[in-house]
Amino acid sequence: MTTAFDGPPLEIDTRPAVLDQFTVDETGRAGQRPRGVAAPADVDEVAALVRWARATRTPLIARGAGTSLEGHLLAQRDELIVDLSQANSILDISPTDFTATVQPGVTRTQLNAATAEHGVQFTVDPGADASLGGMAATNASGTTTVRYGGMRANVLALQAVLPDATVARFGRAVRKSSSGYDLKDLLIGSAGTLGIITELTVRLHPIPEWIRSLRVSFPTVADAVDAAVEMLGAALPVSRLELVDTVSMVATNAYRGTDYAETPALFIDVESSSEPAALAEEQEITRIVLGHNALDLAAARTHTERHALWEDRHNLFFALKSLHPGRRFMVTDTAVPYSRLAAAVDTALRLGAELGLAVSVCGHIGDGNVHTIVPYDEHDDEVVQQYSDQLVRHALAVGGTATGEHGIGLTKKKYLREEHGAAVDLMLAIKRTLDPLNLFNPGKVLDP
Amino acid sequence: MTTAFDGPPLEIDTRPAVLDQFTVDETGRAGQRPRGVAAPADVDEVAALVRWARATRTPLIARGAGTSLEGHLLAQRDELIVDLSQANSILDISPTDFTATVQPGVTRTQLNAATAEHGVQFTVDPGADASLGGMAATNASGTTTVRYGGMRANVLALQAVLPDATVARFGRAVRKSSSGYDLKDLLIGSAGTLGIITELTVRLHPIPEWIRSLRVSFPTVADAVDAAVEMLGAALPVSRLELVDTVSMVATNAYRGTDYAETPALFIDVESSSEPAALAEEQEITRIVLGHNALDLAAARTHTERHALWEDRHNLFFALKSLHPGRRFMVTDTAVPYSRLAAAVDTALRLGAELGLAVSVCGHIGDGNVHTIVPYDEHDDEVVQQYSDQLVRHALAVGGTATGEHGIGLTKKKYLREEHGAAVDLMLAIKRTLDPLNLFNPGKVLDP
Repeated sequence: MTTAFDGPPLEIDTRPAVLDQFTVDETGRAGQRPRGVAAPADVDEVAALVRWARATRTPLIARGAGTSLEGHLLAQRDELIVDLSQANSILDISPTDFTATVQPGVTRTQLNAATAEHGVQFTVDPGADASLGGMAATNASGTTTVRYGGMRANVLALQAVLPDATVARFGRAVRKSSSGYDLKDLLIGSAGTLGIITELTVRLHPIPEWIRSLRVSFPTVADAVDAAVEMLGAALPVSRLELVDTVSMVATNAYRGTDYAETPALFIDVESSSEPAALAEEQEITRIVLGHNALDLAAARTHTERHALWEDRHNLFFALKSLHPGRRFMVTDTAVPYSRLAAAVDTALRLGAELGLAVSVCGHIGDGNVHTIVPYDEHDDEVVQQYSDQLVRHALAVGGTATGEHGIGLTKKKYLREEHGAAVDLMLAIKRTLDPLNLFNPGKVLDP
Repeated sequence: MTTAFDGPPLEIDTRPAVLDQFTVDETGRAGQRPRGVAAPADVDEVAALVRWARATRTPLIARGAGTSLEGHLLAQRDELIVDLSQANSILDISPTDFTATVQPGVTRTQLNAATAEHGVQFTVDPGADASLGGMAATNASGTTTVRYGGMRANVLALQAVLPDATVARFGRAVRKSSSGYDLKDLLIGSAGTLGIITELTVRLHPIPEWIRSLRVSFPTVADAVDAAVEMLGAALPVSRLELVDTVSMVATNAYRGTDYAETPALFIDVESSSEPAALAEEQEITRIVLGHNALDLAAARTHTERHALWEDRHNLFFALKSLHPGRRFMVTDTAVPYSRLAAAVDTALRLGAELGLAVSVCGHIGDGNVHTIVPYDEHDDEVVQQYSDQLVRHALAVGGTATGEHGIGLTKKKYLREEHGAAVDLMLAIKRTLDPLNLFNPGKVLDP
């Protein structure tokens, strides 16, 4: 197109106080102050903005709820923020098809509030109340992934505006398709570097009637991991399977006033189809954990009890923050094969001890995804980086990944070639083909 | 590379009797006689062959067990067949990690024979004893997809030789990764047009102890579909959910000497975690099917009974062949949203009646994937094509897909733009970037 642009097609907010909000991310990391913020309401406004950005060579960072953790949203090159949080309409809910179609700014709790009356739910739960567009862009997952999968398994179709301002659709709103190349999954996890997601059709799942939540204490992390792997092998209908270590339990007791055993624990959800199934499945889990030296098992059967148990897990980060007021936090995100899980946790704790860091571990153990949380001060930056590097390199050495669910963003680019080798050249070729001007979230994921 | 090639790096078989075997596919469709057949034993031989093919501009068709259904393997441009059926070593089975690593020629029954002693299984079951490389190349799925997903969900990582002869790895052998662009899923389903798969790491699943198989008869297809959708909504642990229509039951009775009600039926597998769960889940299914006018329910509880029940389902194609000796068969493969399933089946039966075709329906109803099987003679070719066209266009009009699991291949290219619109330009750009000489299965999926 050769349209002469006098100015941008929608209002750009450049008030310093507004720009400041977009300069620091949730982890406390700071980028440049962006050149401005535009808030398109729909796909047409996004496409118009992209046409203008092309004409004016303006780099863009698409943004939803702003809860990403690896620097995905930090400006570095005088970018314009494309704030999609106001493009937040739920366009369709179809309980029979088990699908919902939404604009990218819809958050997961917003969607679940709307679907609950139909007895269906959107299952991907990264903890934060992220936007669905952002969750797709980072291929988010979380506590329920062990049963329901992450965003790739739960986004059936999406619409995106490409760097040449084309509006295209990827995937189909059906359970299965083998039609053409899978570009839907190429867009998912590309962090806004290949397209700006403007609509998504996601899978919904029935809300189960019988859920038990269990908290089981173990003498060692290895016992907890072994019990978890045996549960997975027994094909029990586990929908959450979380490891929390001793340090985290100490923090939880201090923060929540609870009186839990200060030992490693598993937090477990089991979703059964009926009461007899629920009883049998709880019995089987009890048998398995006792075989791995379980010290204590607490079962939550009512909604209130379950809510309290998971609140403890979800508040872990705040509990640690309260134990370490005023400090920064590094959250690591490696994933490894099950057989390497116990060693990965040991490595983290050993490395932490060697480097004098107060490492705590909590992980989506059912997915082999280990998070460690490390409080630190500004002057420890190098030590914490060294810790993170060694942890990632250990994961890569045993066949794991640098990032199970947070994404590469800005902070993990250095591991990309170590993890993917020659495939990185193909990633670069695709980026250059789609975005030859490098205007879509430049410098994130890779450097074309 | 500028190596001067005197000849190909491995033996090329050009005996006419051998080439004839590669000229006609399983559906009876014929292509050209290929220029030859090479059978590399490993990735190094594949890479050497690709280097030679580049130097000599020889187009290649990679092939596993040869069970694809949409003309994927038919030569059109004097191609060389890269026969990977002898690259069939199982490289690793890790029961703790629930993974296996195999060469591409390993078939699913070969893998399952090797994993069974560990209590784990590879779940993707397209019916045919396909090779895992071929299943990945076509993104195959089948009867168990409703619970375990198809190839995308079950291939964690793969190695491929790209058109420039680079050997690259895609994905990681872990449950979750958000590292970089998802090229693993771009390769899966690309039908050998972007790379030749030389190794795969797949997910294994525990073999469940409690499986019930049920056969339920209904007065109408609509009743069967409604019962199936209600079962999915009840979150029952259904692992197979197949629809078989009246014509198919008539054929089965004639072929297998059975005495089943000649009405539409559901064939169901339920995988329970324990005996009490199994009893409760069978009871719940009984309640649901009775609510949808079920006429008859037969339960198979022993391995022998289950095997007999599924043999009936798996022999359906042969039963129909025996009813229509000497005729060709068209198998359609659309998938639609659940709410459109009953209408899709009705449309197929109505279209068949209008066109004077003996249409029978059997479908992976739990995935919204409807197959119809149509016997025909050579002179009916145009009518059958017209039937297939109308069925696909109906599926696309209601938001479905031209192919749920067989792939685009050669025969469904004409629907690609109708289904994907502007996204096809991106597919073409990717094909041109990766394979500028158009040597990898040229003319399949798309025409660059």
